[in-house]
Amino acid sequence: MEEIFAYERLLIFAQKVFQKIGCSEKDASTAAKALLSADLRGIDSHGVARLTGYIRLWEAKRANTNPDIRIIHETASTAVVDGDSGLGLVVAPYAMQVAIEKAGKVGTGWVGVQNSNHFGIAAYHAMKAIEKDMIGIAMTNASALVAPTFSVERLLGTNPICVAVPAGDEPSFVADLATTTAANGKLEILQRKNQLAPEGWVQDKEGNISTNPHELKAGGALLPLGSDREHGSHKGYALGAVVDIFSAVLSGANYGPWVPPFPAYVAMPENMPGKGIGHFFGAMRIDAFRPADDFKKNMDKWIRRFRSSKTISGQERVLIPGDPEREIQANRLRGGIPLFHAVVDDLRYLAEKFDLSF
Amino acid sequence: MEEIFAYERLLIFAQKVFQKIGCSEKDASTAAKALLSADLRGIDSHGVARLTGYIRLWEAKRANTNPDIRIIHETASTAVVDGDSGLGLVVAPYAMQVAIEKAGKVGTGWVGVQNSNHFGIAAYHAMKAIEKDMIGIAMTNASALVAPTFSVERLLGTNPICVAVPAGDEPSFVADLATTTAANGKLEILQRKNQLAPEGWVQDKEGNISTNPHELKAGGALLPLGSDREHGSHKGYALGAVVDIFSAVLSGANYGPWVPPFPAYVAMPENMPGKGIGHFFGAMRIDAFRPADDFKKNMDKWIRRFRSSKTISGQERVLIPGDPEREIQANRLRGGIPLFHAVVDDLRYLAEKFDLSF
Repeated sequence: MEEIFAYERLLIFAQKVFQKIGCSEKDASTAAKALLSADLRGIDSHGVARLTGYIRLWEAKRANTNPDIRIIHETASTAVVDGDSGLGLVVAPYAMQVAIEKAGKVGTGWVGVQNSNHFGIAAYHAMKAIEKDMIGIAMTNASALVAPTFSVERLLGTNPICVAVPAGDEPSFVADLATTTAANGKLEILQRKNQLAPEGWVQDKEGNISTNPHELKAGGALLPLGSDREHGSHKGYALGAVVDIFSAVLSGANYGPWVPPFPAYVAMPENMPGKGIGHFFGAMRIDAFRPADDFKKNMDKWIRRFRSSKTISGQERVLIPGDPEREIQANRLRGGIPLFHAVVDDLRYLAEKFDLSF
Repeated sequence: MEEIFAYERLLIFAQKVFQKIGCSEKDASTAAKALLSADLRGIDSHGVARLTGYIRLWEAKRANTNPDIRIIHETASTAVVDGDSGLGLVVAPYAMQVAIEKAGKVGTGWVGVQNSNHFGIAAYHAMKAIEKDMIGIAMTNASALVAPTFSVERLLGTNPICVAVPAGDEPSFVADLATTTAANGKLEILQRKNQLAPEGWVQDKEGNISTNPHELKAGGALLPLGSDREHGSHKGYALGAVVDIFSAVLSGANYGPWVPPFPAYVAMPENMPGKGIGHFFGAMRIDAFRPADDFKKNMDKWIRRFRSSKTISGQERVLIPGDPEREIQANRLRGGIPLFHAVVDDLRYLAEKFDLSF
């Protein structure tokens, strides 16, 4: 079912493809690193499996590979960046860098982005802050697949949020989560395996409970974290809404049902109120609150206490957010990245299309 | 089962009680307003029902009613406030004000608080920003009642987070949520009614599924938003952890299992790594991102679109975060606040103790 590829090989290939569609060498390298970080961390749905999707966006003239990315409004601790329809994989690193530079000067930096496209995984961008002894925050909206509590209409994307926190001797704390009960990628795995979804992941087009992993294609919806009202879905809905508002209402991007879809064959929404997709980034310098060494010692203590918690029978350990992804990354850097044949076929198609070796 | 009291009557009584334990007239007024905001918004577990609890904290010398609240570290956009063991109901408004003032100068303000006590409801503090055309954020940690995914130990509080966003003609968006599936107050209601809890709210002391609303007294735990791993409890755990880290590891307060308990009869944890309870506040000036009028017009559009969503059969409407609390507040300002007899008895006890009329 799968073939294994070395990280470097996929990285170089993705970079060459991005150059072929008009990215500068630097932008292509930036985009390829951001894209491949998903494969390294085990978020397979957001990695090279999406490369053909990005190419189709470019073919549909919905992604600008030579964008004039710029700050259109700013204060000492904030900015709004216009991505000029660039790839989110290029726009987001620019905006996160602005947040980090502002944090360096006044303690924190907060950057809204309009007129962008999908940025890969939130963790890649948030984790850039860790290297500077800062807490990093990244979030993005996305096209509507999620029904708010009591709604049959899909009005929110899976709207992920990542918070990355540096530690001392322990590895960093990296919480990266879609504000839904299950990510769309998990449904795709069930579709492939022809298995049913657990109750609480999706509803059908009438809003009834469903276990059909194909429900989204039939007008159904993903459910917000919490699944139903009794289990707190109104909280997951509220969190997804906060991501939408911070990413798009604050920056001037599209929000709610007006967010442009990722598949290039899906028509754009009508009467869009903003520009492109929106993101929101934050960086907080640790020593703007307390000395970084004090903080890191206490983060180490926090992490060790939680990791050493007594577990439920049958469970090996209590995980720290970021543990599973870090372990997958170590394995895949060593042993390679497994890709489904369908993904490999897509990459071979791109190789042929752009006259590249793969 | 209940008696009805006018808001003003309860407000004045609470203020007098706070003065009797040594608060200045100004601090007593600040504390009473913050406390009563919970009763107004329908969060009955956090309002005057807790007044005796605050008095017991003072009797146990764990709340300082004449605190020297001060900034111990700051940058242009950040500060850490030492609450000097003051009532959180007084410390939190001070810290939120610092955040708002910094936002006025550099676009955003972010304030960590150490050495505080319980601050009432997060929404009261976050909503202070709305009046200034700012987005307000408030969060706090609390004593450990919640088991992380796979843990039988309680390591996190219900760790609420509130995000308050101003709108134009529409009422503000106010998302105020505990990072658990169900708030502890909901369990208390079931205990009173002698009803079972839905599966997914609590686990027993071995980590098994339980529907016993008294489970916490038997060593059980509340569950993070998501309830179990299959429904995303690792996300609720991560969110509660972020609140704990922002509120306490960043500010120098206690975190995880070391957070001081609210009931004064519960022994303090040993080897505490910080000072008191921790909070975290944020204020973001809207016009640090885009003109406030543009933003508000788009928030109105966002709110109207979500509110007019087609509903699941049998559901009247899709709610905007903050709708239910605002409607309860309007009713209670008009018709009074219902209190359980046990709460009224507690208030009469305080009236007698402090020689006050009630």
